[in-house]
Amino acid sequence: MKKTLSLPKGFSAAGIAAGIKKKKKDMALIVSDVMAESAAVFTTNQVKAAPVKWDIKVVKHDGARAIVMNSGNANACTGAQGMADVEATAALAAGKLGINSLDVFVCSTGTIGKPLPMDKIAAGIETLFDEVSPDGGMDAAEAMMTTDLVSKTVVAEIDLDGVPVRITGLAKGSGMIEPNMATMLAFILTDAAVEKHTLQCALRTAADMSFNRITVDGDRSTNDTVICLANGRAGNETITQRSTHWPLFLQTLEKVLFELSMMIVKDGEGATRVITVKVNGAASNGEAEEAARAVANSMLNKTAWAGKRPNWGRIMDAIGYSYAQVQENKVDIDYDDVPAVRGGMAAGTPEEELVAAVSQEAFTINIDLNLGTGHTVVYTCNCTEDYVRINVE
Amino acid sequence: MKKTLSLPKGFSAAGIAAGIKKKKKDMALIVSDVMAESAAVFTTNQVKAAPVKWDIKVVKHDGARAIVMNSGNANACTGAQGMADVEATAALAAGKLGINSLDVFVCSTGTIGKPLPMDKIAAGIETLFDEVSPDGGMDAAEAMMTTDLVSKTVVAEIDLDGVPVRITGLAKGSGMIEPNMATMLAFILTDAAVEKHTLQCALRTAADMSFNRITVDGDRSTNDTVICLANGRAGNETITQRSTHWPLFLQTLEKVLFELSMMIVKDGEGATRVITVKVNGAASNGEAEEAARAVANSMLNKTAWAGKRPNWGRIMDAIGYSYAQVQENKVDIDYDDVPAVRGGMAAGTPEEELVAAVSQEAFTINIDLNLGTGHTVVYTCNCTEDYVRINVE
Repeated sequence: MKKTLSLPKGFSAAGIAAGIKKKKKDMALIVSDVMAESAAVFTTNQVKAAPVKWDIKVVKHDGARAIVMNSGNANACTGAQGMADVEATAALAAGKLGINSLDVFVCSTGTIGKPLPMDKIAAGIETLFDEVSPDGGMDAAEAMMTTDLVSKTVVAEIDLDGVPVRITGLAKGSGMIEPNMATMLAFILTDAAVEKHTLQCALRTAADMSFNRITVDGDRSTNDTVICLANGRAGNETITQRSTHWPLFLQTLEKVLFELSMMIVKDGEGATRVITVKVNGAASNGEAEEAARAVANSMLNKTAWAGKRPNWGRIMDAIGYSYAQVQENKVDIDYDDVPAVRGGMAAGTPEEELVAAVSQEAFTINIDLNLGTGHTVVYTCNCTEDYVRINVE
Repeated sequence: MKKTLSLPKGFSAAGIAAGIKKKKKDMALIVSDVMAESAAVFTTNQVKAAPVKWDIKVVKHDGARAIVMNSGNANACTGAQGMADVEATAALAAGKLGINSLDVFVCSTGTIGKPLPMDKIAAGIETLFDEVSPDGGMDAAEAMMTTDLVSKTVVAEIDLDGVPVRITGLAKGSGMIEPNMATMLAFILTDAAVEKHTLQCALRTAADMSFNRITVDGDRSTNDTVICLANGRAGNETITQRSTHWPLFLQTLEKVLFELSMMIVKDGEGATRVITVKVNGAASNGEAEEAARAVANSMLNKTAWAGKRPNWGRIMDAIGYSYAQVQENKVDIDYDDVPAVRGGMAAGTPEEELVAAVSQEAFTINIDLNLGTGHTVVYTCNCTEDYVRINVE
């Protein structure tokens, strides 16, 4: 039986194979039947794909009704032609809906530096509008996949004083994942009515706690985009940051983004396990972040975890070369609650207990620098030979 | 026939299997028969192994006569016991020579966090002094190896107004290699007479042009050390920065260090090819460095090179997320002299020419940011599945 994805009220979707990739689904459409408020966060890379530049305009403009996505071609490093192609794509979808082009988000993911095959995109848009329906969410999620092994969707439902509200998230991403976004796209759809500034604030907060906490290989891409559309079809009283419903809405949005981000890190290219890196006691939160990322992105650590080896020396090494202040003889490290390092030296825990701790499906590395109150957490994965195989091919 | 290594006048060496590693050679000794001037550069990692802390004292002290090295155990993150073990090691060697402990450098490389097996070290020192000879250089070089596939030695000879001078270099290193040192040790021996400050200046300059230009995996280790001993046995007039011989001496030292560093990057764990990354036109030299390192350390680039794929989009991506200022539409990239990118877009060179360029045994990536006069060069290697296999095991 085909999996289905429950979209919020007033949303429909489609996912098709337009021939950009060989045989696989490679175009998706999401449409709200009424104008929605929109919010978005984008890659911090200075080299931004044409669709990212377009979407920055769309989100500044009032409201939006549709998202057109293609995989297989990133439309990045494509110059003026790339911008013209995004605008043409938006115009084609806008024409179908009788709306302004600036009401249409466009997202791309795939190879950099090749022009978009506009004939396939144009034909694809025709087919997408033929097929778009409230049952098309799963097809859209599948069309977003590139090296992803599984499609990534989350549905959350809350009740706001008797008004049921749904938040549905669709995401893709498995390589080039690093805090501050990476080759990842996520579309968050809700039938809640949310004031625009409040929506942007909620999305930024939720992204900082989720997509910006995960790292697969330290690479950040040219195309990363998270878009949130809130169409108000649930009929709730419009949520603002002063509403009684704000805390529940924010918390639910955070949960949806966090679950999607964990799906991405679990599906990291060549990854088999999720590792949580917590740093406490840093001189500042920023330094905690530097230390945590140095550990999470160190190939020597990622390969040690793949080998189920409690090689805490590689953790000491990584925090030592990070930009965080470190006093070697103050550092404590635990795998979950198993002491590995005390005062910069072996804690004396028997090797087999350490091996057992790092052999778990998931575990947390707790690092205490014992210098201050700075703290952070990032989520990463181990690195097996498959990561290299995938990226060599 | 056994390979031999020509040591400079007055130096002898030995390399033996002391049982720290299984069966392989794991201890080396280098002795000058007269007191030598010394210079050294060390890891920038905040977590420094005990022998590094010791050697910082030795190099500040006047003169030195010996280097004792072990592989298999890094004596890092070993606290007060680690320091006591280094001091005991130096004292044992000093006792054999009837000199002060502070005339003995001690170097270690290997596993972090385990106490040094002092019984084996002590017995090893006995054997080393039994075997030390002018013919022992190659044994010493072999004892330095860890994951190295080949031993690394260079000999250079110059003539200073009729006085023959030799510089012999021995090095190890193949993983955890990153600008600003990495798990690498290098011993540079010369019979030239060189004034102490001049020697330190020459070594620092040469290291900045060589060991600090190479990167294998972005990791910097706790133990990296380059030591230079100049014992004056050649009988030349002592070289200072004002000598007519200074330029030739510096140039030769640079050549020795550069050749050793190229041997290290060629022997990078799982590497099959050397790639030179040149950045020009950056806003500053520092920004050129940031851009070059982002490219050289990007796993997505290193795996693309392993696949012989001219994936310049991954280069654009890496410079885009680096700390260097980048204006996408100003970027030019060439593989050797084959244009890949012009103004941030595909240069239009046929794919097969780009593939041919990146399929060479060695090639240079020339990146011009066209923003200023900042420039740099770093040397890196591709990354195959073997890198992960080596570090998982």
